[in-house]
Amino acid sequence: MSPIFEGPLTTSEMLEVFSERNFLEAMLRFEASLARAQASVGLIPEAAAQSIIGTCKAELFDVAKIVREGGRAGSIAIPLVKSLKETVALFNQDAAAYVHFGASSQDLIDTALALVTRTALDLIESDVRKAVDALLVLARQHVDDPVLVRTLMQPVSATSFGLQCAGWAAPLVRSLQRLQLARPHALGVQLGGTVGTLGRMQNKGKDVGPDVLALMAAELSLWAPDFAWQTQRSEWVALGCELGLLVGSLGKMARDLALMSQFEVGELAEAVEPGRAGSPVMHRRKLVACTVALAAAQRAPQRVAALLAAVPQEQERLLGNWQAELAEWPGLLMSAHGAARAMALALPGLQVNVQRMRANLEAVRETLPPEDAAQWFCSRLAENAAELARAQTRMLVDVLATLAEARGEANAAKAAL
Amino acid sequence: MSPIFEGPLTTSEMLEVFSERNFLEAMLRFEASLARAQASVGLIPEAAAQSIIGTCKAELFDVAKIVREGGRAGSIAIPLVKSLKETVALFNQDAAAYVHFGASSQDLIDTALALVTRTALDLIESDVRKAVDALLVLARQHVDDPVLVRTLMQPVSATSFGLQCAGWAAPLVRSLQRLQLARPHALGVQLGGTVGTLGRMQNKGKDVGPDVLALMAAELSLWAPDFAWQTQRSEWVALGCELGLLVGSLGKMARDLALMSQFEVGELAEAVEPGRAGSPVMHRRKLVACTVALAAAQRAPQRVAALLAAVPQEQERLLGNWQAELAEWPGLLMSAHGAARAMALALPGLQVNVQRMRANLEAVRETLPPEDAAQWFCSRLAENAAELARAQTRMLVDVLATLAEARGEANAAKAAL
Amino acid sequence: MSPIFEGPLTTSEMLEVFSERNFLEAMLRFEASLARAQASVGLIPEAAAQSIIGTCKAELFDVAKIVREGGRAGSIAIPLVKSLKETVALFNQDAAAYVHFGASSQDLIDTALALVTRTALDLIESDVRKAVDALLVLARQHVDDPVLVRTLMQPVSATSFGLQCAGWAAPLVRSLQRLQLARPHALGVQLGGTVGTLGRMQNKGKDVGPDVLALMAAELSLWAPDFAWQTQRSEWVALGCELGLLVGSLGKMARDLALMSQFEVGELAEAVEPGRAGSPVMHRRKLVACTVALAAAQRAPQRVAALLAAVPQEQERLLGNWQAELAEWPGLLMSAHGAARAMALALPGLQVNVQRMRANLEAVRETLPPEDAAQWFCSRLAENAAELARAQTRMLVDVLATLAEARGEANAAKAAL
Amino acid sequence: MSPIFEGPLTTSEMLEVFSERNFLEAMLRFEASLARAQASVGLIPEAAAQSIIGTCKAELFDVAKIVREGGRAGSIAIPLVKSLKETVALFNQDAAAYVHFGASSQDLIDTALALVTRTALDLIESDVRKAVDALLVLARQHVDDPVLVRTLMQPVSATSFGLQCAGWAAPLVRSLQRLQLARPHALGVQLGGTVGTLGRMQNKGKDVGPDVLALMAAELSLWAPDFAWQTQRSEWVALGCELGLLVGSLGKMARDLALMSQFEVGELAEAVEPGRAGSPVMHRRKLVACTVALAAAQRAPQRVAALLAAVPQEQERLLGNWQAELAEWPGLLMSAHGAARAMALALPGLQVNVQRMRANLEAVRETLPPEDAAQWFCSRLAENAAELARAQTRMLVDVLATLAEARGEANAAKAAL
Repeated sequence: MSPIFEGPLTTSEMLEVFSERNFLEAMLRFEASLARAQASVGLIPEAAAQSIIGTCKAELFDVAKIVREGGRAGSIAIPLVKSLKETVALFNQDAAAYVHFGASSQDLIDTALALVTRTALDLIESDVRKAVDALLVLARQHVDDPVLVRTLMQPVSATSFGLQCAGWAAPLVRSLQRLQLARPHALGVQLGGTVGTLGRMQNKGKDVGPDVLALMAAELSLWAPDFAWQTQRSEWVALGCELGLLVGSLGKMARDLALMSQFEVGELAEAVEPGRAGSPVMHRRKLVACTVALAAAQRAPQRVAALLAAVPQEQERLLGNWQAELAEWPGLLMSAHGAARAMALALPGLQVNVQRMRANLEAVRETLPPEDAAQWFCSRLAENAAELARAQTRMLVDVLATLAEARGEANAAKAAL
Repeated sequence: MSPIFEGPLTTSEMLEVFSERNFLEAMLRFEASLARAQASVGLIPEAAAQSIIGTCKAELFDVAKIVREGGRAGSIAIPLVKSLKETVALFNQDAAAYVHFGASSQDLIDTALALVTRTALDLIESDVRKAVDALLVLARQHVDDPVLVRTLMQPVSATSFGLQCAGWAAPLVRSLQRLQLARPHALGVQLGGTVGTLGRMQNKGKDVGPDVLALMAAELSLWAPDFAWQTQRSEWVALGCELGLLVGSLGKMARDLALMSQFEVGELAEAVEPGRAGSPVMHRRKLVACTVALAAAQRAPQRVAALLAAVPQEQERLLGNWQAELAEWPGLLMSAHGAARAMALALPGLQVNVQRMRANLEAVRETLPPEDAAQWFCSRLAENAAELARAQTRMLVDVLATLAEARGEANAAKAAL
Repeated sequence: MSPIFEGPLTTSEMLEVFSERNFLEAMLRFEASLARAQASVGLIPEAAAQSIIGTCKAELFDVAKIVREGGRAGSIAIPLVKSLKETVALFNQDAAAYVHFGASSQDLIDTALALVTRTALDLIESDVRKAVDALLVLARQHVDDPVLVRTLMQPVSATSFGLQCAGWAAPLVRSLQRLQLARPHALGVQLGGTVGTLGRMQNKGKDVGPDVLALMAAELSLWAPDFAWQTQRSEWVALGCELGLLVGSLGKMARDLALMSQFEVGELAEAVEPGRAGSPVMHRRKLVACTVALAAAQRAPQRVAALLAAVPQEQERLLGNWQAELAEWPGLLMSAHGAARAMALALPGLQVNVQRMRANLEAVRETLPPEDAAQWFCSRLAENAAELARAQTRMLVDVLATLAEARGEANAAKAAL
Repeated sequence: MSPIFEGPLTTSEMLEVFSERNFLEAMLRFEASLARAQASVGLIPEAAAQSIIGTCKAELFDVAKIVREGGRAGSIAIPLVKSLKETVALFNQDAAAYVHFGASSQDLIDTALALVTRTALDLIESDVRKAVDALLVLARQHVDDPVLVRTLMQPVSATSFGLQCAGWAAPLVRSLQRLQLARPHALGVQLGGTVGTLGRMQNKGKDVGPDVLALMAAELSLWAPDFAWQTQRSEWVALGCELGLLVGSLGKMARDLALMSQFEVGELAEAVEPGRAGSPVMHRRKLVACTVALAAAQRAPQRVAALLAAVPQEQERLLGNWQAELAEWPGLLMSAHGAARAMALALPGLQVNVQRMRANLEAVRETLPPEDAAQWFCSRLAENAAELARAQTRMLVDVLATLAEARGEANAAKAAL
């Protein structure tokens, strides 16, 4: 769990996103937002809220100590709330009682995790888009370059390398679409209190819990679910499934790149990234990006399985399942970003050897009777594929434009808040 | 893989859906539809198409022999196409050459699997709806019945049993929504030919592959994808993920039912279904439905992991991954229907002991100092939860109505074809 | 779960081992053995035992009906015992009460599953030994044939092809060793009665349960555990882990074979097995065996995970876990035999192109400065590897001899019973 | 991957074992041992070895920088070797060329991981033994205390609580036996060089690689394998399987404890550990240890699956699989120790309410007709179970003694080196 083995498989940004400091900040954002919302519906005094908000600054806290005590207490929420209360009390004794009012540890942790997950998703999507852009450039450049079709790892026909590039891009674009759909339902405020009913958030006999939730969602730019998802984890885990699918598609591409980069095939090569790897054999084409993406593809399915297995939680809260789910979550996002970034970096500089593609195709033709060569490896097949490639590329560009627009609108809406 | 161990965990309908005979029929539907479409775009002679269509009748084939030879040949598609050609040739020698024209084994198997999967999904969704209906009835009936909230398997507060029922229903309703979204993108015609480009489907220099695909999609009521999904499995596997989530939510409910049905808790009991189980101890409450749902919840996550792990396929087709994916698929649907049916049968007759719920709550209160009892186990909390339950129930009913409407429209559209 | 998709991935023998008929026979062996043992310790009348033993013949039962009713009853044990009682009663009314005396459904099913699993293991081990034998022949034949070492899918040095063959054989030999160790502790009689204590098996105030168990173990050639393993599944699941490891090692070899069989590499080829596959392109080297082994390697890890996840069973018996475990079990053995058989068939006819191995090595050398070529790709490295290969091969042969001896003794001991 | 979520699920000792600093030290032990061994067989100059050994001190290195650069380089081995060479060169320019001589990055990392894994296993086994000791005390204390047998979560008969305790202990004892068998074959020196043949370790035409390996194994107290296990991972992953089984058995016990600790059942309670958890409801029995063990049981199966899925590595080294395996490994050991420690701490203070056990049993009897009560819930059954418990306990004590003896001998042997 240290960066020794995870480091090469993820990114420094992602290590930062899931760092202790960053998670602590997200928890403090929750507490500040809760206090602000509760004050504005009259549930806690405005002065108390101001004290709490003013104290919710990471630099006031001893991160290492809180993490250590969280290990002992069974949850980081417990020492964080305790520390916050103590610190608030230093400035405003009366306000301490209003810290974390009516909320549960799970409210705090789930919401903080949604906040850092959003940042993680932004990073992942941004690199997937870069990888897609690079693939679309390659697709257009190589639309007329024929290449072997290989099934069961043997050549069976001819296609266009541009179509192969479009075929790698298409599932990534669909993943971007799917993630955009999944995000709003997964990245929600958790606010249920111990029972999931916000029962203690009452002002003059009126339930103000839903108002508090709505205000927090607006401030934190998160979804305001109409149910407490303490033990209804399906939308959250569905996001995990999307990441599993994305990693699978990145892995498929990496596997193809690796196969086409073999010395004997020689059709592709990752650009040598200085500083990475250190093999003494000069001609080794470094498949660093492929390695990272394939390692992610190896691990993500099991992580998704762990999330799914944790769905059947006991009663109103957990016996181990929730803790398991939390602990599995960061690794999935870290793998996904590692894979996406690796491909985003490798694809723009991908070395494509079209001569070799043609030569390999020709070598197959030579082993065949002319009629078989004509039927299965003729240039018409590549031309036909080229046309398909053009159509696919246009369609993908359109989808990307629609996605960008929707994203722009969402950002504008966010900015307008 | 025989029904010995799967039988009790799924349904006879599902064993039928994935029976050899039924899959053979689905394959023949593909071949008939292909011939019809190819004739109408002028790719094959009308007379040949008629011969092929007329021969695509399951009763003309030796199912057991084809399955047996499929085992040897590596794919059931090979002996099926061979048998079909031979049988067509008996009636019309010339037509045999047009059987399966320009299509691949994977086209045939993927499309046939999409057809039987659609039937399987219909069965699953129908039982999930029944389970939801039963839960909504319970939710309304017991909206004012207080029950303990238990977290970490200990009582911590009070809620409304109606709210618990709504909380079990809600993720199922969301699963119905999610499945409705996922279906059209997953249940598609596969038609790519060996290369995925339909390169051989040309009529007078014009690519008629896309037209053939569109006609088949219309006839078979499947999606017409704008890409060959031979090695782009993400939309298909996404459907598997949805089923994994559904099973998780069914499992969560089953676990709760089982816990509340324990002798010492005594709040719930599955109605005794005559003929099921045969324990000699009369007072044993038979948790048959819960057992089935929990077994499914135990298995589905691994099945989803297997599907995800098969996504990174080599090049234009597979080396083991596709075969693994196919073999894992039916089990996931069979588990899902086993779980959904078990709950659909058990919930309408669920025995709810509201006296016991109150007594358990009272027993907890008695162990507590009055102020703690008042704060955490007072009736106001249950009332507050009851209001939430009413709101949740209304909302779920609305969602179900919208879903039913959409389904009705889809059926009407299908009927109009 | 029908043989449609499993058929090509397993063997007809294995489909037979896990057939309904065969499992019914195993269950009847349990019941006959139980009656015989109970009579010999005086727990049931000798005449009753004779009636029961005489009735335990598969041909007297309607297999399909029992399986169908098992589906409804939640367990095949229930209709089997019921049918057996009814049939016994036809001949000897008094004996019926002694059928299945003091035993539980789980006793019956677990023991029957151990019996069929033993047959399955025999099949698997036999084919693994054949694969190993073929590899050792190849290792000796090609000890002096140099071949490229490839890491990260790029050539980095030279070795001996004989060493590669020994390297594929070694983990298989270790798996054979490990299976021989695991078998006796996994393949045990289950006999605990409802409670796991055999409490009802008392004769004149003496516990005769352990004697019954010992007699049954001797007759069925199974292990006599000193504990009821109803909910102590670790030795049983440990056998599943061994199979997972074996499949992994078969998959590693298959992956290497596939890579070396690529058209552009051309160092190996599976012998064409007539009747398998039907590609129209003549030069396609059919990687049928590799496909089967890789599909198994894709699926087995998830199956092992499902078994492990089922270990934490509730209390004295299960809530879904045991059923899940049972249902996952046959698939693991079927995959393992599919993979082992595929390799056992493919390896003896493996086509090794040593010219191509040398040519590929030479091609790499040519791209390098002489000093690099000399350091990393010189013939001395291959010679050094050859020596290692010889030593490895000798060692593996010794291990195999020891294993064969132990097996022979075990069989002799069995025969002497 | 930060300690935020893992911290509560593992131990501070385990975080330390897999800390960056500790891993760096293990890598330096490898390098020092390699140099010492190579000098003693005359492969490198004694003076060079002395310089290298003298420099292999963790405090001379900038851990954070090496980890960071390892992230970029794809492996921590690369910056470590580079730093070591540079530092050696500061003192002895000539010696630098002999650093890491003839070894590969994988040699370094695999061996270092074996070293830290041994420490981790020591911790795990020590806590498992403590848990077992506590269970055996409980088994003896409560041998005559009757308790309900519950299957399918319903009472079906009576047993002895002492037998239940022995039943929890037995699989743990078997795990200790299994681990003792697995350790020597898993914890090995990895030394193969780039090719796995130690081809470069030649002194005057003689292969001295095996001698170097043997010397290192003796010094590091690791196994000296007769094969390079670079891509033969089965013995290593087999150790992972053993841990998966152990965690499953711990999880089974935790689940039972949790069920028996429910408020309505009230038969057991974890001793309240001050400082852990912070629920405001005083009567909540804190199931902290159970939560940790169940979270581990939820996660370990997927981790084992990931290890098994990584077994089929490509050719002589990896493409992503090895990296995936490395990254999954520490989490499995951390979970296992978290679970073992939680149980080791919780069991000695377990609060057993034998009155409640009897009362629950009596409550069941009261609902039954007298003959059923007599048959299934009579005291004779508990007495019978008590006898079994005594026998089981004696047997487990014997096994533990044998294990302790073997361990003692191993330690003595180690000390004598």
